[in-house]
Order: sequence, then structure tokens, then C-alpha cells
Amino acid sequence: MNHADAVQRLKTVEGHIRGIQKMLENEEYCIDVIHQIQAAQSALSKVSNIVLEEHLNSCLITAVRGEDPNERERVLKEVMDVYAEATKN
Amino acid sequence: MNHADAVQRLKTVEGHIRGIQKMLENEEYCIDVIHQIQAAQSALSKVSNIVLEEHLNSCLITAVRGEDPNERERVLKEVMDVYAEATKN
Amino acid sequence: MNHADAVQRLKTVEGHIRGIQKMLENEEYCIDVIHQIQAAQSALSKVSNIVLEEHLNSCLITAVRGEDPNERERVLKEVMDVYAEATKN
Amino acid sequence: MNHADAVQRLKTVEGHIRGIQKMLENEEYCIDVIHQIQAAQSALSKVSNIVLEEHLNSCLITAVRGEDPNERERVLKEVMDVYAEATKN
Repeated sequence: MNHADAVQRLKTVEGHIRGIQKMLENEEYCIDVIHQIQAAQSALSKVSNIVLEEHLNSCLITAVRGEDPNERERVLKEVMDVYAEATKN
Repeated sequence: MNHADAVQRLKTVEGHIRGIQKMLENEEYCIDVIHQIQAAQSALSKVSNIVLEEHLNSCLITAVRGEDPNERERVLKEVMDVYAEATKN
Repeated sequence: MNHADAVQRLKTVEGHIRGIQKMLENEEYCIDVIHQIQAAQSALSKVSNIVLEEHLNSCLITAVRGEDPNERERVLKEVMDVYAEATKN
Repeated sequence: MNHADAVQRLKTVEGHIRGIQKMLENEEYCIDVIHQIQAAQSALSKVSNIVLEEHLNSCLITAVRGEDPNERERVLKEVMDVYAEATKN
């Protein structure tokens, strides 16, 4: 089950972020801190990819194959919105 | 038709990029050039949002409502891939 | 001191990420989970901005005003690298 | 001179964007169009990296080594701003 994988990855990110706090408290080199933040962000992107994949393969299929056009439209609009947020820059 | 809107926006981006070339040739201030590049990238994001919206509302619906599970899987995988590319950082 | 602000923000992100784990464990709606992940990523961007600002206002000034051209080059290269990573997509 | 390289790359992006317009006019597959838009955005990121590198190695060094603290602050703030824009998501 992919949810378990996503949760496990989030636990890793959580530990990573605690580590970055320590780096700041220990006055470690700023650039090293920034690299670690960027790595945590990439790890979060990976989690969002996993969650979106699950969503497409379950809720989206159900909604699109369903008979309610409003529900279909709503679900497709939500996918658009997370994509738009991801491309914001 | 949204394609016409996307084409029109791309024409604008094309002109924008020619303008940025001029800025560089005229030795304009680097930071101003970078802001213009970032604006062109945002405009391209908007175009990709429009194209994805069209795709979801046509090909994706057809594939997901269709009877071929491989085709459905392929189309959902493609949406995943453009999202993953958008979240790469 | 900005470091304290950055650490405080990271503690908030850490709690946020624990909350997202709960959302997944409670089988909450995938799209809501993705929005929360994107929000955590934005919060991390804000932290990296703060850390870079501190870096520019201290280490970078010292290196650029210093007499060692290699050190200056190294520090400017590092700023380039974090920018390049941020623009990767 | 790096400016020439940046201008050349922008000419390539400009041609790329004209090609994407053709793809849309020829009703090519939406996902292929999106991949090309993402490739053009990456190419623009590369140009902004080149321009920032030039900026850091010239204007920024001059400002930071100069005697005007306001000018120094202004130039560092600008670098912060383009980084913040790049990390907006």
C-alpha cells in the first residue's frame, strides 16, 4: 500500500527537518543548511507524487467513470489546481 | 477554443523573449533581465495549465471512460509524469 | 537574530509534517494532503530565503571584501548553485 | 562573453516556442506540448543562471567592495528577491 510508503517518507522528512534545526542551532554553514532544505523539499515533492498517483488511480477513475458530471468536473478541476500550484513559478 | 488562447499566449511569450534578447544586447541591468525571464517562465506555466486542462477534459476522460485498461493506465501515467516534472524542485 | 526565526519556522514545519502523516493514516482526501505538502514546501522556501539573506549579509560580504580571490569565487559559486537548484524546474 | 551565450540561448528558446505554437495549431498531443513547454522553461532557467552568474561576478562584487552601504544593501536585496521568486513554490 502506497500510503504506508508516503507516511514512512514523511517520517524521514520530519527527522531531516529536525536535523536542519540542529544545523542552525550549531551555527553550521548557511549554504549547507540551504542545500538540506532543498533536499527536504525534493523529498516532499516525491511524497506528493505518490499521493497524486494514488488519487488518479482511485478517486479520479471513480469520478470520471461515474455518472455525475459535476463530480467529474470537480475532480478534474482539483488535479488542475495542484498542477497549477506546482508550476506557480 | 482554448487552443487559440494558448497559441496567442505563446506569441506573447515569443515577443517577450525577443525583448529580453534586446535587453541583453543593450547591456541592461542583469537583475531586470532575470525578472523578465522569470515572468516569461510564469507565462509559460499558465500556457501549460491551459493545455493540461484541455487534455484532462478530453483525452483523459475518453481514456478513463474507455474499455482499454492499458490506455487508461498510460494516460494517467502521463499526467503523473508532467506533475512530477513540475514538482522536480 | 534571524536564526531563531528560522528554527522556529522549522519547528512549525515539523509539526505540519506530522499532521500530514496523520491525514494519510486517517485516509483523508488525497488532494487535501497534496495541498498541505505544497504548503509545507512553501514554508521551507521561506526558511531558505531567511538563511540565504543571513548568508549574503555576513559570509558573502566578508568573502567578497576579503583579499582571497579563490574564497570570493567559491562563495559566489555557492550562491549560484543554490539559485540553480531553486530554478531547476 | 557570456551575454552572447545568453542571447544565443534565448534565440533557441524563441524558435522552440514558435515550434510549440505549431504543435498546438497542428493539434498535436497535449502531453507532448506540455513536455515541450517544460523544456523551454528549463532552458530559460539556464539563461537566468548565466545572467545571475555574470551579475554576481561584476555588479555585486563592485557594490559589495564599494563604500556605499545603501548600494551594497540594495544589490544584496535584489539577489534575495530573485532567489525568493525562484523558490516561490
